[in-house]
Amino acid sequence: MRYGYFDDASREYVIENPATPMSWVNYLGTAEYCGIISNNAAGYAFYQSAKTGRLLRFRFNSIPMDRPGRYIYLRDNEDGDYWSASWQPVGKPLTEYKSLCRHGLGYTVFTSEYRGISTHYRVFVPVDRPVEFWEVEITNHSDQVRDLSLFAYAEWCFWHMDQDLTNFQYILYTCRLGYEDGIIDYSIRLWPNQRPQGFMASILPVESFDTDRDEFIGRYRHEGNPYAVERGQCANSIAIGGNPCGALQNRLTLAPGEQRYALFIVGIGAAGKEGAECKKIYSDRRRVDAEFTKLQEYWAKRITKLTCHTPSVELNSMVNIWNQYQCHTTFNWSRSASFNEAGGRDGLGYRDTNQDILGVVHAIPAAVRDKLTALLKGQLSCGAALHSVQPLSWKQGRHNRPPEDQIYSDDHLWLLLSVPAYLKETGDLAYLEHIVAYADEGAASVYEHLKQALEFSWTKRGPHGLLLGLAADWNDCINLQGQGESIWSTFLYYKGLTEFITLAEYLGRTTDVAHFTSYRAQIKQSIDDYAWDGRWFLRGYLDSGRKLGGQESEQAKIFINAQTWAVLAGVAERERLLLAMDSLQELLATEYGILKNYPAYREHIREVGAITDFPPGLKENAAIFCHTNAWAVIAEALLGRGDRAFAYYLSYLPATKNDHAELYTMEPYVYAQFITGKEHPSKFGQARNSWLTGTAAWSFVAVTQYLLGIRAAYEGLIIDPVIPSEWDGFTVTREFRGRKLAIKVSNPDRVSQGVARLLLNGERLPGGLVPLAKMKEENLVEVVLGAQPVVL
Amino acid sequence: MRYGYFDDASREYVIENPATPMSWVNYLGTAEYCGIISNNAAGYAFYQSAKTGRLLRFRFNSIPMDRPGRYIYLRDNEDGDYWSASWQPVGKPLTEYKSLCRHGLGYTVFTSEYRGISTHYRVFVPVDRPVEFWEVEITNHSDQVRDLSLFAYAEWCFWHMDQDLTNFQYILYTCRLGYEDGIIDYSIRLWPNQRPQGFMASILPVESFDTDRDEFIGRYRHEGNPYAVERGQCANSIAIGGNPCGALQNRLTLAPGEQRYALFIVGIGAAGKEGAECKKIYSDRRRVDAEFTKLQEYWAKRITKLTCHTPSVELNSMVNIWNQYQCHTTFNWSRSASFNEAGGRDGLGYRDTNQDILGVVHAIPAAVRDKLTALLKGQLSCGAALHSVQPLSWKQGRHNRPPEDQIYSDDHLWLLLSVPAYLKETGDLAYLEHIVAYADEGAASVYEHLKQALEFSWTKRGPHGLLLGLAADWNDCINLQGQGESIWSTFLYYKGLTEFITLAEYLGRTTDVAHFTSYRAQIKQSIDDYAWDGRWFLRGYLDSGRKLGGQESEQAKIFINAQTWAVLAGVAERERLLLAMDSLQELLATEYGILKNYPAYREHIREVGAITDFPPGLKENAAIFCHTNAWAVIAEALLGRGDRAFAYYLSYLPATKNDHAELYTMEPYVYAQFITGKEHPSKFGQARNSWLTGTAAWSFVAVTQYLLGIRAAYEGLIIDPVIPSEWDGFTVTREFRGRKLAIKVSNPDRVSQGVARLLLNGERLPGGLVPLAKMKEENLVEVVLGAQPVVL
Repeated sequence: MRYGYFDDASREYVIENPATPMSWVNYLGTAEYCGIISNNAAGYAFYQSAKTGRLLRFRFNSIPMDRPGRYIYLRDNEDGDYWSASWQPVGKPLTEYKSLCRHGLGYTVFTSEYRGISTHYRVFVPVDRPVEFWEVEITNHSDQVRDLSLFAYAEWCFWHMDQDLTNFQYILYTCRLGYEDGIIDYSIRLWPNQRPQGFMASILPVESFDTDRDEFIGRYRHEGNPYAVERGQCANSIAIGGNPCGALQNRLTLAPGEQRYALFIVGIGAAGKEGAECKKIYSDRRRVDAEFTKLQEYWAKRITKLTCHTPSVELNSMVNIWNQYQCHTTFNWSRSASFNEAGGRDGLGYRDTNQDILGVVHAIPAAVRDKLTALLKGQLSCGAALHSVQPLSWKQGRHNRPPEDQIYSDDHLWLLLSVPAYLKETGDLAYLEHIVAYADEGAASVYEHLKQALEFSWTKRGPHGLLLGLAADWNDCINLQGQGESIWSTFLYYKGLTEFITLAEYLGRTTDVAHFTSYRAQIKQSIDDYAWDGRWFLRGYLDSGRKLGGQESEQAKIFINAQTWAVLAGVAERERLLLAMDSLQELLATEYGILKNYPAYREHIREVGAITDFPPGLKENAAIFCHTNAWAVIAEALLGRGDRAFAYYLSYLPATKNDHAELYTMEPYVYAQFITGKEHPSKFGQARNSWLTGTAAWSFVAVTQYLLGIRAAYEGLIIDPVIPSEWDGFTVTREFRGRKLAIKVSNPDRVSQGVARLLLNGERLPGGLVPLAKMKEENLVEVVLGAQPVVL
Repeated sequence: MRYGYFDDASREYVIENPATPMSWVNYLGTAEYCGIISNNAAGYAFYQSAKTGRLLRFRFNSIPMDRPGRYIYLRDNEDGDYWSASWQPVGKPLTEYKSLCRHGLGYTVFTSEYRGISTHYRVFVPVDRPVEFWEVEITNHSDQVRDLSLFAYAEWCFWHMDQDLTNFQYILYTCRLGYEDGIIDYSIRLWPNQRPQGFMASILPVESFDTDRDEFIGRYRHEGNPYAVERGQCANSIAIGGNPCGALQNRLTLAPGEQRYALFIVGIGAAGKEGAECKKIYSDRRRVDAEFTKLQEYWAKRITKLTCHTPSVELNSMVNIWNQYQCHTTFNWSRSASFNEAGGRDGLGYRDTNQDILGVVHAIPAAVRDKLTALLKGQLSCGAALHSVQPLSWKQGRHNRPPEDQIYSDDHLWLLLSVPAYLKETGDLAYLEHIVAYADEGAASVYEHLKQALEFSWTKRGPHGLLLGLAADWNDCINLQGQGESIWSTFLYYKGLTEFITLAEYLGRTTDVAHFTSYRAQIKQSIDDYAWDGRWFLRGYLDSGRKLGGQESEQAKIFINAQTWAVLAGVAERERLLLAMDSLQELLATEYGILKNYPAYREHIREVGAITDFPPGLKENAAIFCHTNAWAVIAEALLGRGDRAFAYYLSYLPATKNDHAELYTMEPYVYAQFITGKEHPSKFGQARNSWLTGTAAWSFVAVTQYLLGIRAAYEGLIIDPVIPSEWDGFTVTREFRGRKLAIKVSNPDRVSQGVARLLLNGERLPGGLVPLAKMKEENLVEVVLGAQPVVL
């Protein structure tokens, strides 16, 4: 069963059946103002901070689901019948009410048809003003004059979301609403002397208004049957205390065939100043259109730095539009605000943002540089990193030093992937000499920051010479504290050492090369001696010395990350890596993606940690954690097994779930955090926690850099596809350091890997690398795959 | 407009119109298990801790209001029509659906009549088992056989309420529901190795069940139209992760005139053990009846230690039933859990609980003694007190020492009221020698604890010799930090000194008497010199030395507490006190109660504090704070002005709001925290935050000890009524130290005060004191008021 389809030409996902199993949402806004909106117009908005700048309210995990939001009600004043411009909240029978929801890049459009009236309701946030536009076109398709009311409605949130949810002794006695000239003033006074302000304006004349939620909704009612709409008139209420809302009524008489345009503007600022200014400017509809055009250009610019055309329509939709869009969303908002992240967690997760960078560095390198600097300022002078960084409030000082037991074994090491990714993409080697403060004290060049990260981990090795797990590694729920060692973190360290050595070699810093090559060799020995379990890699050692993830374990014999990262980091010989990945396929791969571990934990094991308390098949306990699936795709591609790599990619790709959305439940156009595993008794294949997941960046890396095989290097662009053998080829366009490349790959021999021939602007090159030095402004790269590859 | 009435004979408040403006709630449970239930069966439950033991979920401040709860749905299987045993959540038109809600002491009963079927639905928590009974009697009044389904439904809460509201990455992946033999098992595993459990059992055979909320409710639906009820069948869902619920269907065929009894039991414990045990025991309805009888006895025992009969029916209802009941509720649950206190704040507020004790000490002195000891363990060795005490997790240690700036000027001083109240009520002077640990280090006798409290305040005096405000005084929102001084805290200190001196005198501890009498004299001098403003008392001095609350102020010229406590503490000569109280009447008294201050603050004044940021008329800024109104009643009674004292009492008494509930909005049977003040533009007279307020205890003290004038003293019982002069008399029954007294007061001269004649068991006594030494087991006290009082 499906609910919608991809309209790639419009860069939209179109939802035909609004009764989706979960809220299918979209993000509005760019840098400072963020709106989230579902396919039934539910959602919320915040300014700068999801935690302390919450403008519009949403009720998380509530009943009725998916409320409130940005609602437009219509009412026929002849008979009092009313409906909404999105199916919900009124929820007319779908036999009589027709609707489409189109989620686009930074905007959402709802169309409806009911009793001869159609509406076209578009919501978007302009690029550089903290407001949102609610545009409504109403058309009378009937043969009678229609007397209609239009009500725009949203609920204001107390700005601090944690207080909004619990502190009713305070939040209900703070607001001081006002109304003047068609504009609602949402004001509040917070101690000490903060006066955040919002407004809601109507361009058309206002027939009535409400600012008190209880007056608009009415007792024992809800957004589906608000009293004001049923009655056809708001109460002109002014909320001083209580729950504030914004509700504005327009009244329209439409002749047969007539169309009218209404606009509501909701945003940050004083009603009398920013509100009045917006009302004035945008009373000229062309100014709104211009903002929309600017928004489309904003997104087009971001997502067209890399495009592809392959035989897989699902891959194309994801890579060209949705995966990139999701990458920008995770880059902008980290893990702070979605429909399941309530926004109490502000700032940047250290490991999260380092990884999010990988998905956007090709598109917005300047923004990435700023974010990298923010992350480096979250590194401590000892080399470790804070688990979470708050760039808005960052201030150097020893107060930033976390207790010893809150240092993670992986956070700082992600810098060894994110910084090189930026350098390879941009060639901006000068950044390495940029001096950045540490979180606690002192400052050093970016290059020294990276070295310090590696040195820190070197001092944190355990009894087997592997990295200590410290507070935790990637998996927060596994207890590798005390003398526990993380084999996965060790692999990440190994990868980081290799990345650094490659960089140092490129820079000619031979002392550093030698120093860290020696580290790497010693780590390699420990891995050889203690990480292999015969058919796959162990996950780690517990504090007691007991193995985590081995053949003798009854529960969780095998973990995905220990296999994939062995390949990503190249910690062993090919034969061992192949065997590990074959074991992964045998024990972990399923039709809906690869399990995180198998078998699931069924008993509480205190020594192993909180992972053992999740029900089998959920979250960290044997679910399909999508983030880790991207690494399996990369690993198989690195091993040259394109068919298997692609099969893994498709297995968890949301676009492939489009036609069985009833099972998958979440959006088919963006990745979810996890898909329920096969050991769950009833929900195998059901996804949860969409949008804000590291899956976005890594899947984009996996498909573009390892399947399509086009990845930045210090010297130029590597082109080394690893594709399903049935493909006859594909094309890619890519911008790289200001040059444009059109890449055509053909696969006449139906192989998976092997560049047999590579022409740059007609010139044959010896390997799979297109050197920057040879690139013109615009380039044509012709690649032929074949059984006899050129040597890289 | 009214919604219900007091049925004192049944000790119930009866709600006839269920569409109350706010949820009108009741408390179920006694000591460990607490349930809260509204007049539409909404509400929640917790075990031991509202913060970490939350069993049933409620959505605070939500839309639709007042959901979910303990719902019983009925469905006619002939035509599929369905309704609920309480009006909401289905909310049938009140023209067709008749209902009553009876809130009683520890139980609530809903009756309904709809289409020939009547229900009698009673919910209660037994005295000593952590479960709740949902008893349903269904009667077929029609002349046809009726095929009915009954669905019982509640939503389980994640045990930790803060996580329940925000941590959806966790709470949705924890539950492991089960079902067997008519019992739903609500299990969960929390790290590390916690396994809280709940259950829901049906005594009648179960036709179908759900444990997954989304299956029962259905997408885009709500508790008013759940899918399972509409369909007539649950899905037998087992929730492993997701939102757990309990839903059990019974199917009943009723002949005309037939009545059936169904019982559901919800509670704490393992389904297979406690659940099965309950199901077995309570399959015998007589066992349920016995539990109900025990509950009634439990409450009767508590509220009949003092009864009265006066010419005021409102006073009688409140004193004999509701005020006492509310006092026990605040004593049990402090400020932790109501419909506006979400329960994130656990434990005992120091000042709150000391005051709550005053309302129950006559009824449950042993429990009060335990609570006093818990509070004394929250006192620091320096004499100050913690602002909040957690008896369940208390452990002595220096970790308990709060930062200097979090010590309040009043917290510890309340011990000087609560401990003497206990001693006077019980005569248990041995308690004074009981050794109790301090929160941080050391231990001392209770007597020394009290001295230490007085000594602490002595060291915290400011430039005028008045008490420093420290973190705050009673009013948390006024900034009296730095060199700021609280005149109110000084009055409390003065009262505390007097209480202690009285005690020390009674004990013959002359050194202490002399020592603290000297303190008091010095404090008196400072008050004389610096607290009086000419027509009323100032409220304090700000850090800058500026006066708070004086005639030259534009905002907040006068504060209620500074006037009432001047009288309560007796800090000045009668003339000055009368003038202060006359100023209060002139500037603060309104038809709905006495304002906290006047005029309201309209501008933000950083120096004055957060009070200035509330809108005028709300909360601390010029609202009618009911807690403070009780003190005004006492003050006028102490001055002998019975008419005015009684008028003040009536002005904020909830029972007097019964017939204009549309304006007042909250329950007419319990006190609310505040009533909106007259400077609010639209809600003057609207109450907020019912149930958990210090108003309960102090109003009970005011009416029983100062209006009716019967109060405990070390030597016996004082009888000194101050009543409205129109009263011809009243009667009281009172237990005191194991003796029973029937007190008959007559007022032939229509005076307000003055005991002209007092007979104890026929013996004329010289004053208004009935000495313990002269009391028999049962006593008749006859009092005649008159213009020529005997000398006390």
